[in-house]
Amino acid sequence: MAAAPCSTTFSGDVWAELRLASASDVPHIHRLIHQMAEFELLTDLFAATEELLTSTLFPSPTPPPFTSFTALILDLSPSPVAPDPSSTIASRRLDLSASPLADPEAAAFASPRGGGRVTAGFVICFPNYSTFLSKPGLYVEDIFVRAPWRRRGLGRMMLSAVAGRAAELGMGRVEWCVLDWNKNAIDFYEGMGADVLPQWRICRLAGKALDKYKGSAGGKAAAAE
Amino acid sequence: MAAAPCSTTFSGDVWAELRLASASDVPHIHRLIHQMAEFELLTDLFAATEELLTSTLFPSPTPPPFTSFTALILDLSPSPVAPDPSSTIASRRLDLSASPLADPEAAAFASPRGGGRVTAGFVICFPNYSTFLSKPGLYVEDIFVRAPWRRRGLGRMMLSAVAGRAAELGMGRVEWCVLDWNKNAIDFYEGMGADVLPQWRICRLAGKALDKYKGSAGGKAAAAE
Repeated sequence: MAAAPCSTTFSGDVWAELRLASASDVPHIHRLIHQMAEFELLTDLFAATEELLTSTLFPSPTPPPFTSFTALILDLSPSPVAPDPSSTIASRRLDLSASPLADPEAAAFASPRGGGRVTAGFVICFPNYSTFLSKPGLYVEDIFVRAPWRRRGLGRMMLSAVAGRAAELGMGRVEWCVLDWNKNAIDFYEGMGADVLPQWRICRLAGKALDKYKGSAGGKAAAAE
Repeated sequence: MAAAPCSTTFSGDVWAELRLASASDVPHIHRLIHQMAEFELLTDLFAATEELLTSTLFPSPTPPPFTSFTALILDLSPSPVAPDPSSTIASRRLDLSASPLADPEAAAFASPRGGGRVTAGFVICFPNYSTFLSKPGLYVEDIFVRAPWRRRGLGRMMLSAVAGRAAELGMGRVEWCVLDWNKNAIDFYEGMGADVLPQWRICRLAGKALDKYKGSAGGKAAAAE
């Protein structure tokens, strides 16, 4: 029933820019998160809405980047992009002359920045804290590149840029999680110098199991025995 | 060479208070973190200093609790404590009449709040973010109770209070990590309703492996190809 998607082919030089996201990127972020949930076989956990993304990622005033929840967007441009000191995190030229790239979703992911740019991925990160180091770090909640743009060094560019920013801010470490069956990702991360910690497991209290603790803290309920 | 520690015995009723920490708690927090590192067999990773803890946990101005790095202190008092709405997170009476409790470190851990209180534990938590929920949550970096005060329900009180506060703030989940060999902790957390996620592994980039990414982001270095 749906019209065939109009694929756009990129060839020759294209320019990748990792930049701070703004509220105008929320529709793309929302669909990228859904694609990520599909990839991770976790669509049953997907409950994101554009409204919630806007209010939680872009509150007014929005805190400085890397001091709270921080969304970054990966845009690809068919022409050179002048870095904007207020938003560009990293940029590089990509040479596609040897292997042109067809992006069937290029129109749907047209970047709000215009100029023929397409949005190809995103990062969500926020500060975490190590008591052993008594220093902040960065936790990368998500790093995602749409399928046609993978295996071009863009994931490496994104994670390197986040790690670089953390190092420059004097942070103690960068952490993220990987599914133990995702061998490609594990190899990639280890190749970048990361340790995959075998012993730690994540514990999670959510949904109804969390709700039942309402009243366990604060105010009169907490003061009562 | 050291003088024998002067043990204090607590009996009858004592009052537990989980409260927001302040900079005056940093010396105790520092020693509690070291005790935790000993317990986790991870003293090789311990690099905390009082100076760093003060500057990172209690910057000026300190953000509101649960909006950034948040330290909570567990104090035990030999007399009833009137909850302070500005700092008390949870409180309860503990009946030790059936089994008095000897605390060999009571003098060393005298609470800066006075009144014969002793500091028996701490929590460090901070907001994290779930893209799937598009909501903030709370991540509990540490939850620790000194040895003589364990198995009295205080860990449950502390985690329940943090979960309660997260639920009341409309957060989507509370998460923390556990070592896979710590069966007591895993049983305890599962008993509280938490899921221990089997598939996720933590990736960590730190130290020299992190430093080598300096220059990968931002400014001229990032703009260069």
